[in-house]
Amino acid sequence: MDVSRLTTFCTQALLRRGLSAEDAEVTASALVLTDSWGIHTHGTKNLSGYIRRLEGGGIRENAKPFIEQEGPAWALVDGDNAIGMVASTVAMRTAMEKARSSGIGFAGLKQSCHFGAAGVYSNLAAQEGFIGISMANDTPTVSVPGARAAVLGSNPFSYAVPVPNRNPILFDVATSTVAGGKVFQAARRGESIPEGWIIDEQGLPTTKPELFPEHAVLTPFSGHKGYGLALLIEILSAVVTGAAIAQQVPSWSFSEASIHTNHGAAFIAIDITSLMSRHSFDARLNQMIEEIRSAPRVSGTSRIYLPGEMEWEHRERALRQGLSLPPEVLESLHLLSNQLGLPL
Amino acid sequence: MDVSRLTTFCTQALLRRGLSAEDAEVTASALVLTDSWGIHTHGTKNLSGYIRRLEGGGIRENAKPFIEQEGPAWALVDGDNAIGMVASTVAMRTAMEKARSSGIGFAGLKQSCHFGAAGVYSNLAAQEGFIGISMANDTPTVSVPGARAAVLGSNPFSYAVPVPNRNPILFDVATSTVAGGKVFQAARRGESIPEGWIIDEQGLPTTKPELFPEHAVLTPFSGHKGYGLALLIEILSAVVTGAAIAQQVPSWSFSEASIHTNHGAAFIAIDITSLMSRHSFDARLNQMIEEIRSAPRVSGTSRIYLPGEMEWEHRERALRQGLSLPPEVLESLHLLSNQLGLPL
Repeated sequence: MDVSRLTTFCTQALLRRGLSAEDAEVTASALVLTDSWGIHTHGTKNLSGYIRRLEGGGIRENAKPFIEQEGPAWALVDGDNAIGMVASTVAMRTAMEKARSSGIGFAGLKQSCHFGAAGVYSNLAAQEGFIGISMANDTPTVSVPGARAAVLGSNPFSYAVPVPNRNPILFDVATSTVAGGKVFQAARRGESIPEGWIIDEQGLPTTKPELFPEHAVLTPFSGHKGYGLALLIEILSAVVTGAAIAQQVPSWSFSEASIHTNHGAAFIAIDITSLMSRHSFDARLNQMIEEIRSAPRVSGTSRIYLPGEMEWEHRERALRQGLSLPPEVLESLHLLSNQLGLPL
Repeated sequence: MDVSRLTTFCTQALLRRGLSAEDAEVTASALVLTDSWGIHTHGTKNLSGYIRRLEGGGIRENAKPFIEQEGPAWALVDGDNAIGMVASTVAMRTAMEKARSSGIGFAGLKQSCHFGAAGVYSNLAAQEGFIGISMANDTPTVSVPGARAAVLGSNPFSYAVPVPNRNPILFDVATSTVAGGKVFQAARRGESIPEGWIIDEQGLPTTKPELFPEHAVLTPFSGHKGYGLALLIEILSAVVTGAAIAQQVPSWSFSEASIHTNHGAAFIAIDITSLMSRHSFDARLNQMIEEIRSAPRVSGTSRIYLPGEMEWEHRERALRQGLSLPPEVLESLHLLSNQLGLPL
């Protein structure tokens, strides 16, 4: 699948459902960028779900996210129930503006929806020279140590750092052991999953992905470490922003399509050039990168990767040779194509 | 051991080595607070090592940490090679001042030394009503995926959040699977360690703690997740602050005592009351806490803990009944007591 053709298809689909040209373009680019990194659980596969909510009114087609409150280095953005990619892009750009004048900027976001891959927004900041950090809450699907039910979302955390003459360092992880999308994928493919990814209703490990999410929940990565990080993300994304908190967040994909999910998110930008010259930063960062790359390797390992390097190489291949989309992504896109009468 | 008597001993020891009354008090309180949380790897056991560096000149007794550069919401603090607890306290207080006026504050720190437990500084911010985040780099002891040597420090990450009428939520973790201190502890006790904590010079897992750190290195928690977080910490603590980066950071405990280690650290404070009323924050945080506490529990689990709750309960017992210090901590304190002619 050609990257630009896929972007055009997604843009057209969103235009048909009432988004402005700019919002459709922002959303389509975010989803296709995510697929191009090889993160197919958070890419164009989800477009049909977002369109279902646009049709139901849970996501507003003509939403105008706005700054509700602000100070020198912070802002609280009301997403106006826009599609998550649009609300989150406004919020990250707000954090970047604050960082430009104050050195660091924090933007909290409420009245948003599922924002897709957190890395889209940290990368946006890094592409313009900032250190970008992004995170969001979601409907609970993850247990905490001692619990046998879902307590927090898989609350993703991402950062990106600009690297001279290269793609940014890009880190994007769920605070669950794996993202829920990977469990759905295994279930769809009829595969079993490794022990440790999910626990059943008794709190015991199970390898049956089909139990999730009705009869099983994800585990936090490294137990208390994933739990603690997810809790910070919940506090910064929801407690301080006015968004729905934990159990109050409906599933963006399973709940009634007319509901405003009120997802929360948080974005931090640090303006590198406030702190030191870009030349000095570049030299210091390169020194660290060279050290990491030249570390003695485990036998059979040909390279040590920086966070995001595999994803950027995946994207370069996709731009050159076209995207190779998994069957469930293609299926979702074809259904949408038929539904909208829009050729893929 | 009585908590206040131990604090007095540590304060006296530091006064004998030339620290001001205030700096001695800040340092002693930080170390004893850490022991009282039950984190004995980062408490008073390390005092003898800090005193060795004070005697050697690597830590300066009369250091005056100062703001080298600053903007509306950020500052770079030069620790002046003060003892890490003093330099880090100045830097966290700087981040808090910036947050008071701008909503969020970032303080980077260079020319510091080992800062002990990261939670000391995030807790300091939370005790005054801020969300506090602290992190630091350290001499490399941790591999990254694909490497069979130490690439990054065990770079700790901590946050603390004020909770109405209770102790703060307090999260403090190494980005290694376990802190190096736990491996040393096992080696001292002649115990073997679980597979996964360290890898040997071939990059293979080993259960022999005595191989560390000469012939084995720690692993990052959850592989690429711990690696990615440690890398962000290195960038914020060292690359942007002017501190020593990765391989340039000497061991604070093993290197020649006259060397300034130039450890880096980073502190972020968020002023909750800039973003919303404290009343509203408290109500929203309590709602989340109640939800977490009331989640269905795994059989045999009597309670679901918040991050830091076990540590605060450990402290309450220590204040009531005295600290029960492990043999290696007592041994280290007794040696110091003899060396300084200062009764314990």
